[in-house]
Amino acid sequence: MAVKITWLIWITILVSCELYVEADITYISARIPLQGQRWPPGSPWPLPLQWRHSPLLLTINPSNFPMVTDLESCDVIDKALHRYRGLLFQNPNVTEDKNLPVLPKLRVHISSRVCGLYPKQDTDEQYELDIHSENGVTVTAREVWGALRGLETFSQLVYTSNNVYRVNDTRIRDWPRFNYRGLLVDTARHYIRVPVILTVLEAMSYNKLNVFHWHIVDDQSFPYVSKKFPELSNKGAYSPHHVYTQADVAKVIEFARLRGIRVIPEFDTPGHTQSWGKAYPELLTPCWVDNQPFRDLYGLEGHARSENMDPTKNQTFEFMRDFFSEIIEVFKDEYIDLGMDEAHYYCWQSSPNISQFMADRGYEPDEYYKLEEYYDTKVINIVRSLGAKVFIYQDPIEHGAKVDKNTIVRVWKGKGQWQDYAYTITDLGYNVTITSCYYLNYISYGEDWRKYYLCDPQQFNGTQKQKDRILGGEASIWTEYVDETNLLSRLWPRGSAVAERLWSDADVNDTDSAAFRLDEHRCRMRRRGIPAQPVLPGNCGDLDLKPVADVIMTTPCKTSSAKTSTTSVCVWLIGFLMYAVF
Amino acid sequence: MAVKITWLIWITILVSCELYVEADITYISARIPLQGQRWPPGSPWPLPLQWRHSPLLLTINPSNFPMVTDLESCDVIDKALHRYRGLLFQNPNVTEDKNLPVLPKLRVHISSRVCGLYPKQDTDEQYELDIHSENGVTVTAREVWGALRGLETFSQLVYTSNNVYRVNDTRIRDWPRFNYRGLLVDTARHYIRVPVILTVLEAMSYNKLNVFHWHIVDDQSFPYVSKKFPELSNKGAYSPHHVYTQADVAKVIEFARLRGIRVIPEFDTPGHTQSWGKAYPELLTPCWVDNQPFRDLYGLEGHARSENMDPTKNQTFEFMRDFFSEIIEVFKDEYIDLGMDEAHYYCWQSSPNISQFMADRGYEPDEYYKLEEYYDTKVINIVRSLGAKVFIYQDPIEHGAKVDKNTIVRVWKGKGQWQDYAYTITDLGYNVTITSCYYLNYISYGEDWRKYYLCDPQQFNGTQKQKDRILGGEASIWTEYVDETNLLSRLWPRGSAVAERLWSDADVNDTDSAAFRLDEHRCRMRRRGIPAQPVLPGNCGDLDLKPVADVIMTTPCKTSSAKTSTTSVCVWLIGFLMYAVF
Repeated sequence: MAVKITWLIWITILVSCELYVEADITYISARIPLQGQRWPPGSPWPLPLQWRHSPLLLTINPSNFPMVTDLESCDVIDKALHRYRGLLFQNPNVTEDKNLPVLPKLRVHISSRVCGLYPKQDTDEQYELDIHSENGVTVTAREVWGALRGLETFSQLVYTSNNVYRVNDTRIRDWPRFNYRGLLVDTARHYIRVPVILTVLEAMSYNKLNVFHWHIVDDQSFPYVSKKFPELSNKGAYSPHHVYTQADVAKVIEFARLRGIRVIPEFDTPGHTQSWGKAYPELLTPCWVDNQPFRDLYGLEGHARSENMDPTKNQTFEFMRDFFSEIIEVFKDEYIDLGMDEAHYYCWQSSPNISQFMADRGYEPDEYYKLEEYYDTKVINIVRSLGAKVFIYQDPIEHGAKVDKNTIVRVWKGKGQWQDYAYTITDLGYNVTITSCYYLNYISYGEDWRKYYLCDPQQFNGTQKQKDRILGGEASIWTEYVDETNLLSRLWPRGSAVAERLWSDADVNDTDSAAFRLDEHRCRMRRRGIPAQPVLPGNCGDLDLKPVADVIMTTPCKTSSAKTSTTSVCVWLIGFLMYAVF
Repeated sequence: MAVKITWLIWITILVSCELYVEADITYISARIPLQGQRWPPGSPWPLPLQWRHSPLLLTINPSNFPMVTDLESCDVIDKALHRYRGLLFQNPNVTEDKNLPVLPKLRVHISSRVCGLYPKQDTDEQYELDIHSENGVTVTAREVWGALRGLETFSQLVYTSNNVYRVNDTRIRDWPRFNYRGLLVDTARHYIRVPVILTVLEAMSYNKLNVFHWHIVDDQSFPYVSKKFPELSNKGAYSPHHVYTQADVAKVIEFARLRGIRVIPEFDTPGHTQSWGKAYPELLTPCWVDNQPFRDLYGLEGHARSENMDPTKNQTFEFMRDFFSEIIEVFKDEYIDLGMDEAHYYCWQSSPNISQFMADRGYEPDEYYKLEEYYDTKVINIVRSLGAKVFIYQDPIEHGAKVDKNTIVRVWKGKGQWQDYAYTITDLGYNVTITSCYYLNYISYGEDWRKYYLCDPQQFNGTQKQKDRILGGEASIWTEYVDETNLLSRLWPRGSAVAERLWSDADVNDTDSAAFRLDEHRCRMRRRGIPAQPVLPGNCGDLDLKPVADVIMTTPCKTSSAKTSTTSVCVWLIGFLMYAVF
């Protein structure tokens, strides 16, 4: 079972006013003062399960702080050490505190001696972090993925105060409550450029989220460039340039892997397939009106009248077999998401071919759910036979379909009333992830992070066995009204609330107390270049005086520098932007 | 009266599919197809009052398109011509269409022959725009401010298609429905850097908004650097660097002036003054608890227990006279906003000094509204005597205060029920602006721009005389949960909905029909570097493939280039950002 039983939580917090007054980041100002606990600077998010925090202050000399590992030639660790050195020592003006003991080094110890290739559903992310004046910093983990989490925590514990580094003598034992801590990004309703996806992954690692659920195609567009079926994106993408090439996909997967993040692609059928039909109309059951097929009701009447995949033809399933054999090879995760939500029956109901097919199979005329089950189980079995494991949305199960019990079911409906679905579907014996209460696109005024924070995926009336079938949850950002202009600020720190809910202990559920730490975390993300939006009135210190170091901006310089000189590109960029201002 | 009676609206629209299929920007894709009118490319926002649009297509040769004026040495026009040349010809790869008549030139004619210094409440923004194959483009206006609006409209009418410029033979007669079309930005709850404020002003000009209501200070912080009272910001700002210097203020005013935008500063008293008390605690009436003054209830219990200015002391009013005499000199508009909202009585009620003062003046013990009126009328009279005109919020009038009838009253309460306030306050004879239904910070999921669009400031049960007292309205963005990370995407294009409501005819109120044009406008803003968020699923063509050209990013290169070489700064910037990605 994915859920571990939580040990005694043993957190000793030193709340010293002097400490956070001194920190470079000053938090909430007047007007709506925080009601909850004020945390010391460098308080980590998500909160570790066991955190012993001594008042003894230590410091770091950035020019003499070896960061080493005893696991040789492991790219995951080597690159992480390089990355975290950068995150720790962003500001060249900050040095060691001459009055404090200096930490001699940081050492990462991997007890399994194995450099993992890809993180998986049963990956062990547990780690131990010890910060001690003589021994220095020790990050110990069984797997490299745990060490990544430990490095992240260490990077958060270190803070700057009057241009010196400080960190408390600390001992942490930490592991996630849930193994599945995801984030869905929809790249079909609006195209999201690869550098922005990489920024999302970067921010996920700052929040210890570990699954990037890539809702890559949908009705609106098909940006995935298939090797076997390139016409899908040639005709189905917003343009031949609004696409993810094989190189793009590989880049995303590798970037994620190095941060201990799985990439699970979703190719949603039999509904949500309008864009597939641009290149392959024969895949879809045409809508019929007045005894005529191919009446594009969809385009006229929207959502509820969408065409579905045509389950009456063998060619549909042959196509699926070919297509998914490619997907399984390209995306490295053991799981593929097959979607299977919102298969509206309107076009099926309009089609005489479908009626005939159903009669031939002995279905009653209104038993479209059986037709859905027929399609779903066939496609699930195809993908299973190709060697992949499968995620689906709750819809087929809700409609009574019986599918392979190894299928993981995403509960996405119900917002505040998702608990009934969680009960029913776990009762049927399926493993489940919850996303109903984590829709980040449903933005509202104010501190709406609190409602995400308070949604506990195991808080439903079920047996312990049922609750153990909850593998975790995922934040979702559907992009009807989101693109690069507002994606990152809408994701963070609202998604951070979900991240702590899924990592930290269930008892860590006081939003007043979390607010202070979340505010520090959002400023920390801003310092790292993520344009995370405010939690409350206040400021992020000197960060407010500089532009949001938005990674979105890197591409022109980066991409073009391969072709022309960095200087000329930047002169152009500066010229253009200065022009735009004046 | 500010409201002009609208003539016959005469719009001939050529809706040719061929036209917008060819345009470089492709609009909404599948899933939620637009129900309303599909407009031709280059449809302006806000919609002009009279727009005759012929099917005859013309083109422009960017290297031979003189843009001239017969008004010599007028910086407003000269700089506007330079600016709009840049906006028109952003892409060096776009040229004239060899198959179309070429427009010979653009000429701006100012019939008053006067180069305006600052736009005012009674400024005439009317303009005529003629686009004709032989005569070229003529923008005619009585005042320069009208010419700015005409140039903006022209820049929107021109579109690119297959890398050539196109524009239809067009005749426009246009003027605003309301003279007061504002945008409030709160720079106290979060500090907003000057380059970002300039970007806001730039975007305002793209939407023909003409008043920047600068809510510059509040409880949380006092970023305005006063010449006479520098301690106000030294102690009251978030930090000594989170400030607007005199040079900053002058820069904002000049940038706004060149775009025909007034800058009205708000210094809100007697409530919302916590930050004033950091340097000058004697200005505020201390809260009393258990017969002790100076109990900082505010910091403990928030909002409703804020301290107010102390009306019992002459020094308070002397300070106000000194302070506002500076403000009137520094900010060039004829109006100053004195706020006067939310003067919660809690601390006044707790104070024996206040009770004594009220008794001495013959007020009943619970007549705090009289104390409020006493303070308000005194400060209004001081500011009037210094030569300025005054805006206030509705609160004093609501509480029964009688103030100078030249005071303009902002109706801000009531959201959906603001109409009663509009009725009452116009019935008392005050001129009014409406903001209740234009709070852009109250974000919600989906197409919430429609509710702003549908709020007509004259739609209440009043006489024509009362309705004529509505001078306009303003969009507001309060920054409790907004800073540089989300300000611009939250402002646009939701603020554009307010802009069209305040400029265009009252009958232009079909949101389905507006959606298509608004979507084009949001892509247009993105092309100009404003990170305007999506209106609907879809894409902005090639714009989606480039980073949001966010003006936010200009500062480091721009500011630093004065000190070091552009190259080295950019190499640093690129290095930092590349580092952040990898």
